[in-house]
Amino acid sequence: MTYCLGLYLEEGLVFLSDTRTNAGVDNVSTYCKMHHFHEDQERLIVLLSSGNLAVTQAVLHRVTSSNLRLNEEVEKSPKNLREVADLYQAAELVGDAVREVYQHDGKALEAQGAGFQVSFLLGGQIRGEPMRLFQIYSAGNFIEATIDTPFLQIGEHKYGKPILDRVVKYQTSIQDGIKLSLISMDSTLRSNLSVGMPVDLLIYERDSFQSSMRRRIDETDPYFQNLRGYWSSALQHAYQQAPDPDWQE
Amino acid sequence: MTYCLGLYLEEGLVFLSDTRTNAGVDNVSTYCKMHHFHEDQERLIVLLSSGNLAVTQAVLHRVTSSNLRLNEEVEKSPKNLREVADLYQAAELVGDAVREVYQHDGKALEAQGAGFQVSFLLGGQIRGEPMRLFQIYSAGNFIEATIDTPFLQIGEHKYGKPILDRVVKYQTSIQDGIKLSLISMDSTLRSNLSVGMPVDLLIYERDSFQSSMRRRIDETDPYFQNLRGYWSSALQHAYQQAPDPDWQE
Repeated sequence: MTYCLGLYLEEGLVFLSDTRTNAGVDNVSTYCKMHHFHEDQERLIVLLSSGNLAVTQAVLHRVTSSNLRLNEEVEKSPKNLREVADLYQAAELVGDAVREVYQHDGKALEAQGAGFQVSFLLGGQIRGEPMRLFQIYSAGNFIEATIDTPFLQIGEHKYGKPILDRVVKYQTSIQDGIKLSLISMDSTLRSNLSVGMPVDLLIYERDSFQSSMRRRIDETDPYFQNLRGYWSSALQHAYQQAPDPDWQE
Repeated sequence: MTYCLGLYLEEGLVFLSDTRTNAGVDNVSTYCKMHHFHEDQERLIVLLSSGNLAVTQAVLHRVTSSNLRLNEEVEKSPKNLREVADLYQAAELVGDAVREVYQHDGKALEAQGAGFQVSFLLGGQIRGEPMRLFQIYSAGNFIEATIDTPFLQIGEHKYGKPILDRVVKYQTSIQDGIKLSLISMDSTLRSNLSVGMPVDLLIYERDSFQSSMRRRIDETDPYFQNLRGYWSSALQHAYQQAPDPDWQE
């Protein structure tokens, strides 16, 4: 499994992804699920992936390669994430690539009893266009984060959702967004073995057209260790201080 | 969906279940998913159910009825939860009933594209026997809570699991167990519409052979309102006090 998270905030975007890939419990690997494409001061596009690794890598190849592919109209434009004019076109491009891979591989996967399950988070900004964040489904269709729903998750999303549901707002600062994303990831790491360290973090500040931080965080990272310890003891403390039941039987 | 929870604690057992049943989003009803069987000072057995309502009701009928059923060996013993000698026999009885219902209804359900998905939590104590807590699967097999893993969940369990993973221990008091169960339920209620109020709470103190509390808690319950408000603000406060990232870029 996977857990990837994107926050769509007034100040910018926060992206966080784990790195665990497994085919059964005895074939566990580390793969970066966060990919970014940038032209300095012109565009930054971040793509987070979840699902069958062969499929997500095939999609990634299609949206980044400038080589022509078999069975493809030569006229197709834009061909890759460096050519799209805005984030909506980028989401369409990824959605189309998902459909192409499904056409190419879907039947063979189903014949082996393997489902065609992938999803992506895609966010960023191109100069002259608004900053946007999308979630793209296996069917190639997609939804967008809004001011009302300022975060999107893919993969094993349930364990880490309650803290986001309660706290994340569009007005949340990037600084708080980093903390909340790491807390959400920590809850998922603790409850599901198929989501694993290290995690990749990328911060994009609105209208900057470049990432302001990219960091791989592993088990030994002093800040993450500190935050995990803090959060565990804060929860312990919070429930110990919670009001006792006062029902009269 | 459903969310039911059982805590297996040194002091006793805590059971909590929601009441929402739905067939599609426009056919939502309230059903109690908590059933208990007791003989005063002799036995208390609690059964929580999740899954297809027709199947769980059929299982419930089989483990409580003393009427003979078609295709059943008359010699079968024990016939119901009032006749079992210990909790292990009770779990076997429920598992057998699940298999009988599958034999009776499974094919017809599958023909309609409806899966045979049910699960149960079963806990309690019979005089002279230890207090135990089991989880019974759709296949009729079951697992038992232990000192190392002192809680079991069925239904929509992921949202409410992180707080339990972090805090619940065998030594946790019943009083704290009630708070933690309600906090876990609250996280689930907020994140998943298919789990709904009111909720049913039952407390069993070890070696008492009767419930020490049974309570239906609805939206207007002052204690639950108080706890929900407290927990939301405690989490807000906790994350605001969390250490800020101090990485040097």
